[in-house]
Amino acid sequence: MTTTDAVWADLTSRWQDLADLNGTLALLNWDQSTYLPPAAASGRARQKALLSGIRHARATDDAYGRLLDAAAARTDLSPEQARMVEVARKDFERATRFPSAFVQARSRHFGESYSAWTQARPGNDFARMIPYLEKSLDLNVQAAGYFPEFADPMDYFVDQSDEGMTAAQVDAVFGELRAALVPLADSVIAAGAPRTDFLNRHYPAQAQLRFGEDVIRQYGYDFAQGRQDLTHHPFMTRLGERDTRITTRVKEHDPIDALYSTLHEAGHALYEQNVREDFLGTPLGGGVSAGVHESSSRMWENLVGRSREFWAAYFGDLRDTFPDALGDVTEEEMYRASNVVSRSLIRVDADELTYNLHVITRYGLERDLLSGRLAVADLADAWHAAYESNLGQRAPSDVDGVLQDVHWFAGGPGGAFQGYTLGNVLSAQFFAAAEAANPGLKGDFARRDFSRLLGWMRENVYRHGRMLRPAELVVQATGQPMSVEPYLAYLRGKYGALLG
Amino acid sequence: MTTTDAVWADLTSRWQDLADLNGTLALLNWDQSTYLPPAAASGRARQKALLSGIRHARATDDAYGRLLDAAAARTDLSPEQARMVEVARKDFERATRFPSAFVQARSRHFGESYSAWTQARPGNDFARMIPYLEKSLDLNVQAAGYFPEFADPMDYFVDQSDEGMTAAQVDAVFGELRAALVPLADSVIAAGAPRTDFLNRHYPAQAQLRFGEDVIRQYGYDFAQGRQDLTHHPFMTRLGERDTRITTRVKEHDPIDALYSTLHEAGHALYEQNVREDFLGTPLGGGVSAGVHESSSRMWENLVGRSREFWAAYFGDLRDTFPDALGDVTEEEMYRASNVVSRSLIRVDADELTYNLHVITRYGLERDLLSGRLAVADLADAWHAAYESNLGQRAPSDVDGVLQDVHWFAGGPGGAFQGYTLGNVLSAQFFAAAEAANPGLKGDFARRDFSRLLGWMRENVYRHGRMLRPAELVVQATGQPMSVEPYLAYLRGKYGALLG
Repeated sequence: MTTTDAVWADLTSRWQDLADLNGTLALLNWDQSTYLPPAAASGRARQKALLSGIRHARATDDAYGRLLDAAAARTDLSPEQARMVEVARKDFERATRFPSAFVQARSRHFGESYSAWTQARPGNDFARMIPYLEKSLDLNVQAAGYFPEFADPMDYFVDQSDEGMTAAQVDAVFGELRAALVPLADSVIAAGAPRTDFLNRHYPAQAQLRFGEDVIRQYGYDFAQGRQDLTHHPFMTRLGERDTRITTRVKEHDPIDALYSTLHEAGHALYEQNVREDFLGTPLGGGVSAGVHESSSRMWENLVGRSREFWAAYFGDLRDTFPDALGDVTEEEMYRASNVVSRSLIRVDADELTYNLHVITRYGLERDLLSGRLAVADLADAWHAAYESNLGQRAPSDVDGVLQDVHWFAGGPGGAFQGYTLGNVLSAQFFAAAEAANPGLKGDFARRDFSRLLGWMRENVYRHGRMLRPAELVVQATGQPMSVEPYLAYLRGKYGALLG
Repeated sequence: MTTTDAVWADLTSRWQDLADLNGTLALLNWDQSTYLPPAAASGRARQKALLSGIRHARATDDAYGRLLDAAAARTDLSPEQARMVEVARKDFERATRFPSAFVQARSRHFGESYSAWTQARPGNDFARMIPYLEKSLDLNVQAAGYFPEFADPMDYFVDQSDEGMTAAQVDAVFGELRAALVPLADSVIAAGAPRTDFLNRHYPAQAQLRFGEDVIRQYGYDFAQGRQDLTHHPFMTRLGERDTRITTRVKEHDPIDALYSTLHEAGHALYEQNVREDFLGTPLGGGVSAGVHESSSRMWENLVGRSREFWAAYFGDLRDTFPDALGDVTEEEMYRASNVVSRSLIRVDADELTYNLHVITRYGLERDLLSGRLAVADLADAWHAAYESNLGQRAPSDVDGVLQDVHWFAGGPGGAFQGYTLGNVLSAQFFAAAEAANPGLKGDFARRDFSRLLGWMRENVYRHGRMLRPAELVVQATGQPMSVEPYLAYLRGKYGALLG
């Protein structure tokens, strides 16, 4: 072994340890959401803090930084190795550039802010949150200031979740989308709602869970490398290189909620389960960005799971599983019911189409706060105005207005939302490219055959892990930069056909 | 804060961290036994190795050793603090006295030996295991040699699991027991077997689990600080200071196996759940020895769970839960069926009475191996001879003979078994003392009232954690040193009454 190979062996061993600490932390979190006895919560918080501290110490170790510098200076690395070092150095910068007093002050403040929000929200007391939010905003502007390579604080936050993308690019995408979606939502809603009465009937929980699991097994989710459990909020988590679990929740008087949460989280898991084998345990061994990750979850949830072909394949089974609830329902009615569009005040309850308007609203407000164009004291009113403009309605109070989401109150304004809509946009762009390469792709779904779509996504998206930057990945996979056109074409095609 | 208080604060913080690392390792193990996806096994092994290494580094840190030395020299400590330091120093010695090359060589050898055993056992190939076992024995004698304060290697191993006890004391207890149990088992078995046909009927799994959980809830097991899940081998584990979980297995054609495994593991958990609050997260925050721990599990499983009064309380419920299987069965028949005594070749299948003879057999063979009186090459034959002498039967091959238990092949001969029977002995001694202090105690059980027994055990055993040495605890709780008399009186009383 040469000296430089010893350096590389040291690096890969450190990366594997960091991955294993991340997996252990993921297990502490997963267990907390699934099975932790109620009295154990404070002890678990302490265990998580201890493991986070151990991980942080290793991720910011001086010797590790020197190893990364040495590796970056080498000229004999393969492209994969060079990218591993690049990504690791970027992670190292992120972990080390904040002074530790700043990290602690920020963490303490967000804890206090979150705690205040849990009381202010039920009391409809936005005024109480103003000083907290002002300080959060100030801290986040300061955080961005530690990365002067970003001209605008929002650029820093966008880059955090979608590497290489700028706020100006998000502005452009969201501007185009908003212009198209507002009138589209208006006309779809004006055309009237389909039949949905049967969605309130009784659907036993276990049968719902088994049905969703059968579907994702056919999608290609590997239960030998994962499992599904119940939690209050559904999520996907990676606990190890071959351990990618999902969770869902189930309501006995709603057959849609658990199914689509399962399909959504399985979409995230399919990404993680199909990253190149030799990237696992390295800085490249996971999804590349919030937007690309979300493109996968939205694709399997919406473009596949809410398609005509999906229901052609599965409605018969669903009716056989729930004959009492679905005896008088047709496949067409189920298809339409799973694609209802309606005005909602609440983001997490929104449908596929209007969800984007909720995101665009939040993004615009964050943008204005971070740039100083909007004062925190005016945020609640600005929220109502933006909802009237983007979604045509006004919340009766701040409870279902500015106080509805936890994000700003537990982490401050800064890039928490845009990835969801970027994911929608990319899901359609990837899907269109997959269809172009695989004529008749949607017809596969009616035969419960998802292998061509999974194969295309594996080869063009999943397997690359963090090897390619998101923008490079999009161009390489689809032949063009990110574009809203495929997504708008998809929505117009779908809702146009639905409305006749 | 004075200098010395800062020392104490540093110590308690290190103890809390060690407890939290132990809890995290317990979670990694619990998850592996309950929910880990099959393909994730090798990644989990790596995570466990990493966390074990982190824990070991902290448990053997030089600065920690110096802090312990400084604390031990202080004269201002409370008795509890002084005992914390004493126990921690003993743990520190155990963790540091082996050279790390020895630890690694031993760990590697046991891994290889275990792997060979998984093939040798199905092939009935003890000869293949001889060299492995010779090396294991040699390594364990060497291990004991690092603790020259113990004259005999077996003393070292006995002290490891039952602090302060010597092999000579175990010899004496086991000698008395063997002399009484061999003829007792003979006469009970000669009297003929009770009716057991109904134990092979169908008992749906979920209803079995709920039944056992109802019982232990009434015992006092706190589900807010624990839970029960399914595993291949039942166990109890502490994942945090208020997180003490148990596991069981369930067979649909055996209503006894899951129930008594639940009662047994709950007995362990009741100990852990009732340690003094201010001991949690310190070296005193857990059970004091293998024998005392097992006394609790055996008490709630056998002295309570296999009593007439238990079945007076619960048989009606059990028959209501399983009317098809138990419609023609009486309470007396269930009581007798749960107390069947029979000759078995397999320890883990043995009944309450003969189980001790399995343990005594293994202990005697370990004793002879470690003292050099028995050569490994002669072990298989010595096993058969001991079984003929102690249990009156001979296994047809080594598969159900010397190869049956994993312990010697994964850890070498050295004190793995005696705690089980010491637990039986102590369970009766504690119970007799509890009865003397609470007249009519058994009558409580028929009313499903376990509060006086739990209260006595809490005050006299559980709450002390590791504050008292096992022998001190026994004397303080029962007024006399460990004695086989209460256990023999219990067995003779029970089986005498059963045989009329």
